[in-house]
Amino acid sequence: MSLNTFGHVFRVTTWGESHGPALGATVDGCPPGVPVDEAFLQQWLDKRRPGQSKHTTQRKEPDAVKILSGVFEGKTTGTPVQLMIENTDQRSKDYGEIAQTFRPGHADITYHQKYGIRDYRGGGRSSARETAARVAAGGLARAALNELVPGLEITGYMTRMGEMEIDRARFDWETIAQNDFWMPDAEALPDWEKYLQEIRKGQNSVGAEIEVCARGVPAGLGAPIYGKLDTDLAAACMSINAVKGVEIGEGMAAARLTGTANADEIFMGEDGPEYSSNHSGGILGGISTGQDIVVRFAVKPTSSILTPRRSIRLDGSPTEVVTKGRHDPCVGIRAVPVGEAMVACVILDHLLLDRAQTGGVRGQIGP
Amino acid sequence: MSLNTFGHVFRVTTWGESHGPALGATVDGCPPGVPVDEAFLQQWLDKRRPGQSKHTTQRKEPDAVKILSGVFEGKTTGTPVQLMIENTDQRSKDYGEIAQTFRPGHADITYHQKYGIRDYRGGGRSSARETAARVAAGGLARAALNELVPGLEITGYMTRMGEMEIDRARFDWETIAQNDFWMPDAEALPDWEKYLQEIRKGQNSVGAEIEVCARGVPAGLGAPIYGKLDTDLAAACMSINAVKGVEIGEGMAAARLTGTANADEIFMGEDGPEYSSNHSGGILGGISTGQDIVVRFAVKPTSSILTPRRSIRLDGSPTEVVTKGRHDPCVGIRAVPVGEAMVACVILDHLLLDRAQTGGVRGQIGP
Amino acid sequence: MSLNTFGHVFRVTTWGESHGPALGATVDGCPPGVPVDEAFLQQWLDKRRPGQSKHTTQRKEPDAVKILSGVFEGKTTGTPVQLMIENTDQRSKDYGEIAQTFRPGHADITYHQKYGIRDYRGGGRSSARETAARVAAGGLARAALNELVPGLEITGYMTRMGEMEIDRARFDWETIAQNDFWMPDAEALPDWEKYLQEIRKGQNSVGAEIEVCARGVPAGLGAPIYGKLDTDLAAACMSINAVKGVEIGEGMAAARLTGTANADEIFMGEDGPEYSSNHSGGILGGISTGQDIVVRFAVKPTSSILTPRRSIRLDGSPTEVVTKGRHDPCVGIRAVPVGEAMVACVILDHLLLDRAQTGGVRGQIGP
Amino acid sequence: MSLNTFGHVFRVTTWGESHGPALGATVDGCPPGVPVDEAFLQQWLDKRRPGQSKHTTQRKEPDAVKILSGVFEGKTTGTPVQLMIENTDQRSKDYGEIAQTFRPGHADITYHQKYGIRDYRGGGRSSARETAARVAAGGLARAALNELVPGLEITGYMTRMGEMEIDRARFDWETIAQNDFWMPDAEALPDWEKYLQEIRKGQNSVGAEIEVCARGVPAGLGAPIYGKLDTDLAAACMSINAVKGVEIGEGMAAARLTGTANADEIFMGEDGPEYSSNHSGGILGGISTGQDIVVRFAVKPTSSILTPRRSIRLDGSPTEVVTKGRHDPCVGIRAVPVGEAMVACVILDHLLLDRAQTGGVRGQIGP
Repeated sequence: MSLNTFGHVFRVTTWGESHGPALGATVDGCPPGVPVDEAFLQQWLDKRRPGQSKHTTQRKEPDAVKILSGVFEGKTTGTPVQLMIENTDQRSKDYGEIAQTFRPGHADITYHQKYGIRDYRGGGRSSARETAARVAAGGLARAALNELVPGLEITGYMTRMGEMEIDRARFDWETIAQNDFWMPDAEALPDWEKYLQEIRKGQNSVGAEIEVCARGVPAGLGAPIYGKLDTDLAAACMSINAVKGVEIGEGMAAARLTGTANADEIFMGEDGPEYSSNHSGGILGGISTGQDIVVRFAVKPTSSILTPRRSIRLDGSPTEVVTKGRHDPCVGIRAVPVGEAMVACVILDHLLLDRAQTGGVRGQIGP
Repeated sequence: MSLNTFGHVFRVTTWGESHGPALGATVDGCPPGVPVDEAFLQQWLDKRRPGQSKHTTQRKEPDAVKILSGVFEGKTTGTPVQLMIENTDQRSKDYGEIAQTFRPGHADITYHQKYGIRDYRGGGRSSARETAARVAAGGLARAALNELVPGLEITGYMTRMGEMEIDRARFDWETIAQNDFWMPDAEALPDWEKYLQEIRKGQNSVGAEIEVCARGVPAGLGAPIYGKLDTDLAAACMSINAVKGVEIGEGMAAARLTGTANADEIFMGEDGPEYSSNHSGGILGGISTGQDIVVRFAVKPTSSILTPRRSIRLDGSPTEVVTKGRHDPCVGIRAVPVGEAMVACVILDHLLLDRAQTGGVRGQIGP
Repeated sequence: MSLNTFGHVFRVTTWGESHGPALGATVDGCPPGVPVDEAFLQQWLDKRRPGQSKHTTQRKEPDAVKILSGVFEGKTTGTPVQLMIENTDQRSKDYGEIAQTFRPGHADITYHQKYGIRDYRGGGRSSARETAARVAAGGLARAALNELVPGLEITGYMTRMGEMEIDRARFDWETIAQNDFWMPDAEALPDWEKYLQEIRKGQNSVGAEIEVCARGVPAGLGAPIYGKLDTDLAAACMSINAVKGVEIGEGMAAARLTGTANADEIFMGEDGPEYSSNHSGGILGGISTGQDIVVRFAVKPTSSILTPRRSIRLDGSPTEVVTKGRHDPCVGIRAVPVGEAMVACVILDHLLLDRAQTGGVRGQIGP
Repeated sequence: MSLNTFGHVFRVTTWGESHGPALGATVDGCPPGVPVDEAFLQQWLDKRRPGQSKHTTQRKEPDAVKILSGVFEGKTTGTPVQLMIENTDQRSKDYGEIAQTFRPGHADITYHQKYGIRDYRGGGRSSARETAARVAAGGLARAALNELVPGLEITGYMTRMGEMEIDRARFDWETIAQNDFWMPDAEALPDWEKYLQEIRKGQNSVGAEIEVCARGVPAGLGAPIYGKLDTDLAAACMSINAVKGVEIGEGMAAARLTGTANADEIFMGEDGPEYSSNHSGGILGGISTGQDIVVRFAVKPTSSILTPRRSIRLDGSPTEVVTKGRHDPCVGIRAVPVGEAMVACVILDHLLLDRAQTGGVRGQIGP
């Protein structure tokens, strides 16, 4: 009940510290018979892997995932799947000062206050390295979704980085995979690159906004009242390191709208109900409508910067912290595949959950 | 596993439909020995109760809460507490049309698609009436918190209603309870009243932004990685009807900031660590810092408006929906006590959870 | 997390004390579209109801169950079902002595030690009255099973009462409902009646062994490793008041057998695999085989007897306890419908759980 | 929700197959600051390890446990502890026949029926090898209990093996660790050895009864109604491979007793309440009394015997199965440390759970 698990049916428990021998995900509840292998999972890990571009940390980790259980002859068996990633780039170094100092904006101080002990090497459990395990589990979720809902696509992309924002009129799905920012607006790309270089030169960091869109999700997924689809998506995204806000559809902007402006009117299409707009982000009353599921979250700028910040030591004495070393000027970039992984896990989870209660039967609409 | 329960240790299961005989909350895991009676709970229900001001629905429900179990001689016994609220204002009427029509922006269509059956009277289970049960449970959480953390205060207030926004420079705690909007900016009050009257006259509705602040929360609460304090707060708020976005501290604005601007520097105060600012909203790495916990959420404008909206019937035929009757032009007003209740439940839950794992022991800082 | 809930998907939370205003069961996760009404549930409550025969307590409780939510127009909607039973026979009396005294063999002392407070009226939460709520929930489980697995039958019966034991050679399904003991051996009946009368005259009580057999359960239900079908059945039965042992199939006797004697050989029948015997009680590796599920549990003799027993008071002083009033000489009799209810809940739960993970798909055997 | 997890607060998820690369336990919710290392855990694994005596399987597995996370500088940190055991003795062999055949009394057939796919090598997930992971987790639970409840002792021993039974008058705690059976009756030892040799020579196997006694457990642990201490102990033991019955205190024999014979009278001792006897097995109303906790379970004889048994193949055709190779004539012997591990986990879990709800406060008895 220390809650390192998420999901109701497709249950993912991540374990491991940044500088321990390994980390991973124990996944229980995966449907049997799903084709999957290490290569399939690795492609998502490679997307998140550090050292890929000049914009991310230069820490070199192959992040090679191993399947230790639950897969037999290329298919899941319905038993727990253990996904392990060994840590290889654990540079030996003097942790003397870090062990005694609380970095501002980090979990150093709260872990110490809560547990009275912490693995201070690289942030220990609170390190963003933990998200590698999420991405591995998300890969498994994608493999299962491929079987259960052919055609479903889950795509994440950046919509804002500090003062840079995409122009939705130029949104292009193809562009996303073609740049280092997972960004859908090709025209804005040069400005983004220049902006981030300045941030880096300024020994600073910057926040980001990521959107994840799930297309092809069937209507009827979600478990009101407290396991609503949007509730679980909000929890999944907020649980990612450094995330401070989550939105579904209109999100916080809904507070500014009137009922007439916000209404998604309903029409009868050929294959079922259709909507005039998607202010709801594809979810009504906690249940999917069949429209695109649209989730957005904000990642704060990392506090690991070269500019000195005031803090205290374990003994209460004042100090200044400068974070040298291998850090991302915009951690939001690598949060894109993590957000996708979380959304994949939640959608699979609700698909399985829905089978439990309704058997997948659906109320018909139409003549 | 239809997930009508929230909380890990302090577990609240709400039940009941808008127009059934009763609704309520089954609360399991409340600490024993907590002084509580119906009058204590009723004060919070009265705050949420409809028909209180000209700005809320005129449905008359006394919303009188009864304690059916778990309290003996004025104190909780540690056994489940059943909190029941009988529905009294169930006007008999012709549901013929409503039964066949899906109101836009409502859960009518998704409940039908998921379950193949729905209690269409007043929205059934998806009605905001369900939040009365949350408020009752929140009252019990407050009673327990009063015992366990004297001095802790949880206060909700509106920060935005459509185009109206508070001026934080004029924020006044005392003002909040003195107006119909639970709003902290007395000077803006006349404008807000005028604005909402226009919305109502325009047969429209409007969204709102609510902030809940918890003061006096001890450091060390939260259960990384997936039951982080902010994760559970996000889930709790997102589970409230009509909520589309949740923020902690800087929230979505964190995406716009640089690391230097966002840093909360740390100092040693007389009673422990103090911070130069609270961009984090009182939570680092999913664990409370001891600062104010600041949560914000956006409530969409209700779709129950007098302006006609296009929709379909069960048989797929097109129709127009006009929602007559007793609806709030700004449902966000009554969401204030609901948000407070959810925050109270989450904080109590994490207080109990923390006792389980750490026994409440804390890492010391200082000489 | 005070764990007044059982079940994974079909989740039953019971609440209420023996002498409070009401008790009941909050059932979450029931499939939608299941036909059910109060009369259907009442038949099972009537089976358990006190005052039915000379062998059970003469406390008069109509035990009328009310459905407060989750059922609309005669069918479940998939939302929580609240089943409430009001307490009517709460005789006012002087609780002065009971409030200060711990009855031997009762939970008085452990509830006091754990919680520091207890509702001493009639045993409060630890009273066997709580099982009325289980029986109501079990009725709902039966209604759902009737829809999902036509032909499935769950029948409980006594196999032992103190020194009296049934002769399995005379086992007759029809006899069970025709006697006050729910006993399948008509020839032994006069001896059982005489025996229990002597127990009663001797101001004593006696234990019992109950068996519950579920016929028509499909193969493939169960969730290894820790939610095995037998694991959950054992937990469900052990959670019933006064139960001290649980057996599946051969049960404790398996310790005496050799591998050759215990083997259930497998044959190919017309409709699938068949077995030469059922030592396993219908469960292999935690998963149902399609054979009869056979569960047995022992109920200890109630400590509420007229023969004085030594005990202590709250202040530690010695005392003697004689339990006057309305108690059963063999509480095991009324445990029969309770055992049936628990088995019904577990089987439904695993049926729904299995749909979640496998979608109900089954591995084929045969050409 | 495939339920490979047990425990409420101290949550153990085991993973891995008999012949996969590794198996292990992911333990979440361990208190921080508990001293533990691999050597401490290894002692319990060595107790269970095969090939230790002539009475157990000669499969050679070092069963060396590795701690991959959650322990830093010799103490737990409160984050998940990953305990991994690599499989080394995976003899390559032809699985052709085993892959097509269902061994009687094994989970081969039910796993196939449920999942449609199974890892047939060595029983896959249903192999008793999975219990190595339980024993590792149990070692961690013991380490935590050593810190939290000094003096608590958990000891398992065999009380029956087929026709052999201990004489309780000769019960000696010291004897238990001094023989291959973990048996407390030294005088009976030669007979037991001779008996098991005959079973083995007869190409047969035999069942066993194991008792686990926990001494020094404080009063007040247990979470009525469905997470009772006895309920969770029953579930924990029934979840062990091949277990068919579980008893607390008098167990099934309670069905034979009268109320006067079964009563545990209460006295006031120097340190609190004492009891004249322990028919209850240390648990009343699901809560510990402070007496010895006594749990007993029966292990069926393994079906892996050299005597041919009739069965079927995947295609439905009849066959005969003879299990050659490295199997235990009495698997109950190696179930002793497994039973201890499960009891250790349950007691720690309830200790933590109790802290959550009551904060560990206790109702006083005495002047």
